[in-house]
Amino acid sequence: MAIRLGPNQYGKSQNHVVRIYRDTPRHEIRDLTVDTSLRGDFSGAHISGDQSEVLPTDTQKNTVFSFAKEKGIDSPEQFGLELADHFLETAARADGARIGIEEAAWARIQVDGKGHDHAFVQTGGGNRTTVVNVEGRGSDRKAYVVSGIKDVVVLKSTGSEFQGFLKDKYTTLQPANDRILATSLIARWRYNTTDVDWNATFDGVKALMLQRFAEIYSHALQQTLYGMGEAVLEAYPSIDEVKFSAPNKHHFLVDLSPFGVENPNEVFYAADRPFGLIEATVIRDDATDPGHAWHSVPAFL
Amino acid sequence: MAIRLGPNQYGKSQNHVVRIYRDTPRHEIRDLTVDTSLRGDFSGAHISGDQSEVLPTDTQKNTVFSFAKEKGIDSPEQFGLELADHFLETAARADGARIGIEEAAWARIQVDGKGHDHAFVQTGGGNRTTVVNVEGRGSDRKAYVVSGIKDVVVLKSTGSEFQGFLKDKYTTLQPANDRILATSLIARWRYNTTDVDWNATFDGVKALMLQRFAEIYSHALQQTLYGMGEAVLEAYPSIDEVKFSAPNKHHFLVDLSPFGVENPNEVFYAADRPFGLIEATVIRDDATDPGHAWHSVPAFL
Amino acid sequence: MAIRLGPNQYGKSQNHVVRIYRDTPRHEIRDLTVDTSLRGDFSGAHISGDQSEVLPTDTQKNTVFSFAKEKGIDSPEQFGLELADHFLETAARADGARIGIEEAAWARIQVDGKGHDHAFVQTGGGNRTTVVNVEGRGSDRKAYVVSGIKDVVVLKSTGSEFQGFLKDKYTTLQPANDRILATSLIARWRYNTTDVDWNATFDGVKALMLQRFAEIYSHALQQTLYGMGEAVLEAYPSIDEVKFSAPNKHHFLVDLSPFGVENPNEVFYAADRPFGLIEATVIRDDATDPGHAWHSVPAFL
Amino acid sequence: MAIRLGPNQYGKSQNHVVRIYRDTPRHEIRDLTVDTSLRGDFSGAHISGDQSEVLPTDTQKNTVFSFAKEKGIDSPEQFGLELADHFLETAARADGARIGIEEAAWARIQVDGKGHDHAFVQTGGGNRTTVVNVEGRGSDRKAYVVSGIKDVVVLKSTGSEFQGFLKDKYTTLQPANDRILATSLIARWRYNTTDVDWNATFDGVKALMLQRFAEIYSHALQQTLYGMGEAVLEAYPSIDEVKFSAPNKHHFLVDLSPFGVENPNEVFYAADRPFGLIEATVIRDDATDPGHAWHSVPAFL
Repeated sequence: MAIRLGPNQYGKSQNHVVRIYRDTPRHEIRDLTVDTSLRGDFSGAHISGDQSEVLPTDTQKNTVFSFAKEKGIDSPEQFGLELADHFLETAARADGARIGIEEAAWARIQVDGKGHDHAFVQTGGGNRTTVVNVEGRGSDRKAYVVSGIKDVVVLKSTGSEFQGFLKDKYTTLQPANDRILATSLIARWRYNTTDVDWNATFDGVKALMLQRFAEIYSHALQQTLYGMGEAVLEAYPSIDEVKFSAPNKHHFLVDLSPFGVENPNEVFYAADRPFGLIEATVIRDDATDPGHAWHSVPAFL
Repeated sequence: MAIRLGPNQYGKSQNHVVRIYRDTPRHEIRDLTVDTSLRGDFSGAHISGDQSEVLPTDTQKNTVFSFAKEKGIDSPEQFGLELADHFLETAARADGARIGIEEAAWARIQVDGKGHDHAFVQTGGGNRTTVVNVEGRGSDRKAYVVSGIKDVVVLKSTGSEFQGFLKDKYTTLQPANDRILATSLIARWRYNTTDVDWNATFDGVKALMLQRFAEIYSHALQQTLYGMGEAVLEAYPSIDEVKFSAPNKHHFLVDLSPFGVENPNEVFYAADRPFGLIEATVIRDDATDPGHAWHSVPAFL
Repeated sequence: MAIRLGPNQYGKSQNHVVRIYRDTPRHEIRDLTVDTSLRGDFSGAHISGDQSEVLPTDTQKNTVFSFAKEKGIDSPEQFGLELADHFLETAARADGARIGIEEAAWARIQVDGKGHDHAFVQTGGGNRTTVVNVEGRGSDRKAYVVSGIKDVVVLKSTGSEFQGFLKDKYTTLQPANDRILATSLIARWRYNTTDVDWNATFDGVKALMLQRFAEIYSHALQQTLYGMGEAVLEAYPSIDEVKFSAPNKHHFLVDLSPFGVENPNEVFYAADRPFGLIEATVIRDDATDPGHAWHSVPAFL
Repeated sequence: MAIRLGPNQYGKSQNHVVRIYRDTPRHEIRDLTVDTSLRGDFSGAHISGDQSEVLPTDTQKNTVFSFAKEKGIDSPEQFGLELADHFLETAARADGARIGIEEAAWARIQVDGKGHDHAFVQTGGGNRTTVVNVEGRGSDRKAYVVSGIKDVVVLKSTGSEFQGFLKDKYTTLQPANDRILATSLIARWRYNTTDVDWNATFDGVKALMLQRFAEIYSHALQQTLYGMGEAVLEAYPSIDEVKFSAPNKHHFLVDLSPFGVENPNEVFYAADRPFGLIEATVIRDDATDPGHAWHSVPAFL
């Protein structure tokens, strides 16, 4: 019976690096949490305990912090690509490198109606994410970039129904012709190129998805998500696929009739769990090959 | 040896009620998580298991949802006061009622530069809180309102120092004359009246605290907090006390010299724990008696 | 209008110290998360930013780690008392010191039916806690110790009812004569002395509380808690008060009748929230004065 | 430009079902959190909003609770297989069903040295998990079972080193010849059959992995994990693959020399993040095809 090492990766997770740009009195801030990892044939490290091909995770951490100064952080995508290429140069045994990044958003504190030069407040509305994969070196090099946004909590108080569904013996749900639709959205999109204005594209995709969520009359969360993804693919030729993971945050109408009180879609109990979970992909027919892009996405990005 | 029942309270926690105002096509949303509790001499329930004086927590929950329609939610403070008074009327054995509320903030989704009528996105920047206490009935009735904001994450990239501190045998910290100051602020303020424009005051206090955080040159987090509280007391005669709980979110300058890289206050490691925790009260000399106001504040509000 | 500093404290939170005893091949492990804080008249630090009386939180952290070697960790209570006394010696301006500690429990990994010498696995079943307060010095010194256990999840599948409760207009709950009783218990008890075998007493109190939870026929969670606290006070003269905070983890019987299936108390939906929250104190009539003991307990201990 | 629906699935997440067996006075308890999902060509639901092929997630939830009585819960694996087969029968459009289950462990409360009949306490030490996939129907039916355990926190206080690693310009880590090795283990193993004694195998695999963690002298976490997986494959012919995800919970030796205190591997700072993250697969050379088994594993199982 032969046993061997299968797929594996190792790296340093949750490097929380904050980079201040202070070249002028008006500071800028980038706040990134960076996961690095390398994969390849590391049988020696696993089977005999030989570390001679292993670039320690501590070294990976040091590199993240040093690159924040050496290369700067213009965007999470650019920063991730620089790190991935570097690690493949350094660790000869690795055949792939994956850099996962989550960026927290900061806004300037308002003083007398103007944004302060060096005081910031964190905003919510969903953190920006990216997962960069580089496989191979030199002429064999392939780079994959999946970017996204996580935990954008959105809600429509009308313009949503759910009816005409399949019924079986266990169905007790009543059709709804006017319900609250709410989700805590995770969206990820895969670029087909690295020749992208990363920051402008992120802003545009996010705004477009929110707009479509608002505009689409919803027959189901699935159909809303599809419409959001379709709009992104139509507007951004650099994107080949959009994936959504969307918990249906149920808002149940409360029965106030025992108390002699009417409730015409005004008072809801917002439930936590169980929740419907909708996962969908909208993709071009002629999408490029994703390689390991999707399989390497950490759960939290 | 005599043993007896001491301080006690019971109620329903985490009633998540969402109230939609849909009287016009431009909907409004209030999203509250409500904790109710009653206290008093409930020895019967505890010692002999006699429930005849106990208004069930399930009934309290029903009341929260029904009041969202019957009384409406103009502000968390008004809603809490109505609930507290009601419970004291219903439960004769109770001598106090406490209502704790956390409100999640929603903004309209922007479509073509305008806020949508019925589509919303949750914003961050700190949830609004209130803890209402009512003790007694009729002419003995006393009402206490503590309002606040929680988890406002703020950061200054300069304008902060920490030096001249007490040293002992275990001191290794070096003085810092230019450091990052950051915290995840919990602020609570106690009103001395219920004759307040609750919504306008909340907005004003929040904006003022952020402004002062930005403006004050900081010798320590303590001194920044004191200045923030002092400004609130000066601007709002209806407020007698401000309490802060502020973790010092340490941002450590990374030593890049082993890699031949300079780091002039640009690259930081944002640590999670351990963290300094600063708790302080700024209070008027002639503050009114707080009664049970502070002791009844649940940890999460 | 005079404004001043009110109650305040500052310190280092969440110092995670792991102490290995390796004097023999059979190692021992203590795994503590320690919060330290000092309180007193620190007006200088708050109002003028003068740090000369402030022992930095970084120094407090260093002391925690050094004392783990210098003094050792025989119990969280002993370790907390040593730290509190030390900080009051060092920081002249402090009039009180509070040390909060949570201990994670580890068991030996079983190999061939025997516990391994130096390999451990974390067990659940509730972390041990303590909050030590020392006020004053020398002949004025007073020490208060509150110890406890947190997040012990217990459940009875029968032997629990809830009926005969007060009803009002909003009551829809039906009486239950056989229900599941479950809670995630937080218990804290206050000692009236420091002359205690801390480890043996903790083990005994925990076992006794679990036993009483099992044995008592429950008319309500309140009455179960009271019985648990009473048993502790009867068995341990060194304890003056027991406080409980117990969420009623509701298990709702699922109605399977639409599917033609009976459900005689066998299938339950375990709800998260809202939940009943029961807080109660069982106390001796002649209990000693608690001083600041209870007010200084951090929410998470 | 053609756009279409790609991979998708939908279902009900986090159905928390508690099943009491009360046929004799000695009750038994199973506490499962169940995620169900269906995948297939649901283009209608996504593109035109047609729900006629969609079995609602609410119906899936009802089925979970009813099956807990109708089929019983002998093991998570058996329960998942029954649910998956049922859903594929009911939802004609689905070509695959995935059931993910996490089981919380309960032990009897000890009273006078004996386990109580109907009072239980939750234990820690890692929840049991399973992910069942069924694809196709009738003669095309394929079933895949991945079982596991999550969040088992283990630690060795000696018998672990890390040295001889690859160095580059960013390496500052010093070799360690005696360090603490600790992780919060997630292990998952894929069965090559459904003809398994699920409960006995789970217990056996868990015990064996812990034993090997204790016994193996560790040159790196990778090599410890490999040895654990190898032992499982050697002992259990029904298992084809073992996957690990193991954060390296760093315990840093604290430098107490500034205080004149020696620290011979006794006092450690247990860090949270960043952390090394090691992911590895140990697999038979002749392993069966995994189909969608791994890709369908939810992140939290």
